[in-house]
Amino acid sequence: MNYLVVLEVLGNVIKYEALVMILPFIVSLIYGGKDAYSFLITIIIMLAVGILMSSIKPKKKTFYAKEGFLSVAICWVVISLFGALPFYISGAIPSFVDCIFETVSGFTTTGATILQEVQSLPKGILFWRSFTHWIGGMGVLIFTLALMPSIGGNTIHLLKAESPGPAPEKLVPRIKQTAKIMYLIYFAMTIVQIILLLFAGMNLYDAMVHAFGTAGTGGFSNMNSSVGAYNNVYAEVIITVFMLLFGVNFTVYFQLITGNVKQAFKNEELKYYIGIVFLAMVVIAFNIRGLNNGSFGQSFRQSSFQVASIVTTTGYATANFDLWPTLSKAILALLMLTGCCAGSTGGGIKTVRIVLMFKAIKREVNRIVHPRMVNSVKLDGKVVDDESISQVGLFIFAYVAIIVVAVLIVSIDGMDMESTITSVFATIGNIGPGFKVVGPMGNFSSFSPLSKIVFSFCMLAGRLEIYPMLLMLRPSRWKRS
Amino acid sequence: MNYLVVLEVLGNVIKYEALVMILPFIVSLIYGGKDAYSFLITIIIMLAVGILMSSIKPKKKTFYAKEGFLSVAICWVVISLFGALPFYISGAIPSFVDCIFETVSGFTTTGATILQEVQSLPKGILFWRSFTHWIGGMGVLIFTLALMPSIGGNTIHLLKAESPGPAPEKLVPRIKQTAKIMYLIYFAMTIVQIILLLFAGMNLYDAMVHAFGTAGTGGFSNMNSSVGAYNNVYAEVIITVFMLLFGVNFTVYFQLITGNVKQAFKNEELKYYIGIVFLAMVVIAFNIRGLNNGSFGQSFRQSSFQVASIVTTTGYATANFDLWPTLSKAILALLMLTGCCAGSTGGGIKTVRIVLMFKAIKREVNRIVHPRMVNSVKLDGKVVDDESISQVGLFIFAYVAIIVVAVLIVSIDGMDMESTITSVFATIGNIGPGFKVVGPMGNFSSFSPLSKIVFSFCMLAGRLEIYPMLLMLRPSRWKRS
Repeated sequence: MNYLVVLEVLGNVIKYEALVMILPFIVSLIYGGKDAYSFLITIIIMLAVGILMSSIKPKKKTFYAKEGFLSVAICWVVISLFGALPFYISGAIPSFVDCIFETVSGFTTTGATILQEVQSLPKGILFWRSFTHWIGGMGVLIFTLALMPSIGGNTIHLLKAESPGPAPEKLVPRIKQTAKIMYLIYFAMTIVQIILLLFAGMNLYDAMVHAFGTAGTGGFSNMNSSVGAYNNVYAEVIITVFMLLFGVNFTVYFQLITGNVKQAFKNEELKYYIGIVFLAMVVIAFNIRGLNNGSFGQSFRQSSFQVASIVTTTGYATANFDLWPTLSKAILALLMLTGCCAGSTGGGIKTVRIVLMFKAIKREVNRIVHPRMVNSVKLDGKVVDDESISQVGLFIFAYVAIIVVAVLIVSIDGMDMESTITSVFATIGNIGPGFKVVGPMGNFSSFSPLSKIVFSFCMLAGRLEIYPMLLMLRPSRWKRS
Repeated sequence: MNYLVVLEVLGNVIKYEALVMILPFIVSLIYGGKDAYSFLITIIIMLAVGILMSSIKPKKKTFYAKEGFLSVAICWVVISLFGALPFYISGAIPSFVDCIFETVSGFTTTGATILQEVQSLPKGILFWRSFTHWIGGMGVLIFTLALMPSIGGNTIHLLKAESPGPAPEKLVPRIKQTAKIMYLIYFAMTIVQIILLLFAGMNLYDAMVHAFGTAGTGGFSNMNSSVGAYNNVYAEVIITVFMLLFGVNFTVYFQLITGNVKQAFKNEELKYYIGIVFLAMVVIAFNIRGLNNGSFGQSFRQSSFQVASIVTTTGYATANFDLWPTLSKAILALLMLTGCCAGSTGGGIKTVRIVLMFKAIKREVNRIVHPRMVNSVKLDGKVVDDESISQVGLFIFAYVAIIVVAVLIVSIDGMDMESTITSVFATIGNIGPGFKVVGPMGNFSSFSPLSKIVFSFCMLAGRLEIYPMLLMLRPSRWKRS
């Protein structure tokens, strides 16, 4: 393991985190909040540490998968620790474990909160809380890659370890360019959403906060009752549409921009994603009609927002879906697991993995009937090799295994089963709300510190798609060559 | 597809089902019950149909995997339909859907019931209900294979399609002999248990009923409050030990009998199984101490029985574990999924599959660190090839996918989440009880007929390990050659 190069990457990440924190610092100054000093202190600490560490010039430039995965895991833990400082120093969140939970929830775009009340918090603090969503959505390392001078070696491994999906693609041959293009698309879409929300009647601050939460598919709101607080149908439609858009593989947008429309529309995952979303919206709308005096329009308004919010793993709410009938809740729980598209800012297992597994099972059944016939699983017209299918199966198993272990630990707290299980779903899937205690009108404050640490691990494991976190947990493996 | 050979197998199975039904018929006569005629009518119908069908002599003797899988699926459905007749004709269960549910639950060794009260039922009917467990435990087709004249072709596919576990082994080169040895071990163990239960103070009838339920890991009792009704510590210990014994791969017993002790103790799955069971017993005993006034002895008595019952997917109860703390319930829910050993009479995903997947994930992490090193997954000292691992992953995914679809359909009934989910766990895992509505003191009577059909499908899918049922659902695939 080339530790020095890991430290160099880490130093750069901390440096850039200090720079992005200038934005909430300015916001804090504008609103004359007493929280400004907490940002200033944190920025100074991070700059000092970051500049010192990034000045490391490792002799060996080797950068393989192991360095990539370990860098990503350690960076995400470290930026969460530094990112938690403003909450702690300003006194906005008294417990440090809670500060870490909230920051991890922000960066991993989960949106789960331990705050029982948010509206009373300083504007700068709430801005930083939502801004972490935006940073974490596209990726901290990708951001760093786009800006930092080349460290040499094969930095594709950083992209691989941080990007959701079974096969992250380079859009253009150079990694640095790929990272820049991704951030450009992300930035442009966010700006468009902010402008539209302004037209819908939101003020600039609220529009920015909600656009950050949408773009990163995070879900932190500055309102206690989330997007429902506005009761603004235009804002709801804009957020619904943009949540769904940010749940799409960014490669599709790149293909559309570069005129490769045919390729973009060939994307099978996108078709299944659209189909699942539409089906879920309609079924739930029918199922909850009774709660809306039989009005399908009102029911569809609620179901479409909640489905978009859950499937993209954002977590905003306009209705207390915890009170919905069991069928609707079961559909939402399922969407929590599947998530949206690979290569998007969303979490979950990802639609493409589910599609691949179903195709592979279909092949198994065919094999019983025709043991000697060549059956290959195809996606987007291309053959998927057996090793990839095997890896997808293992990924899903590892995902479920982490859920199981987390549920066992969290169940020590003695909450009811539904809260216990969905709190884990909500964190590993980077969603935010679950049911009952952690429902859309609830929060994570009542869990024990141990559970909060487990949740933080789940959020990171979900965001980084498990393997970087598993590698980090096994230091004995790092050295073997 | 060689349909004629499938019909021939089916005819033989029906014929033998008629013969085994003579036993409950005799029991019914002994107790002078009015239910005797219902057995007589059913036996006559089955003999007529069975003899007619088994007289089919197909010209082609081809018997491949597809014929094996389809035969098994159709046979299990058909024997359940015929097996339901005594319940229906005698009027013991008025609804025919309920009769089917109860019989499928019996043959698949699930032990889930729609009966709200069992003690008032005729003795012959209750005997048949429990006897289906014993027949289904080792396998209907294996039973037929052991007895019927060779149909030619490669009947290993019948064994493969019916035996639980990723790799059913032939104990001896000849299938017929293998089937006979398996049934002999099974029979001998059942007799020993009956004798021990007699010593513990049970009467012969009750001892037989409970030994059938234990041997098949089924769980039907003739008492409303299951084994708890006796409050007999000896009987509890005997049943606990025998449940655990029937949850072990029968190959181990064959190895022990033939003096291959070394090989038997090499069995990795067995070690993990024992470890998991013991750990679960101890943790739950500590967790429920509060409910037993701090007595660890009493708590361990309860926890050991319930853990053995759930992990082997039997489903007997001596305590209402639905009232236990969340941690204990979470452990039980997990054991419902994992189940016991492959090649046993129990259900669930099976320990060996879980172990294999964990080993494969460990290898994936190692691969990140050493991409070029040859890493192979080993079990019992032998290398497991990648295709087997991939198939295990697909099996688990298919298992979970069926759970998800079933939960969605059952959730239309609007029961609470915990009942909805665990009712599906309890049926696909062939366990019997779940939590809340379907808890150890509850039953499945309040679900809709649609849900009961879904449960029946789940029980069959769980018992036959999915693929035969998937193949049966796709008749369009049968013909293609």
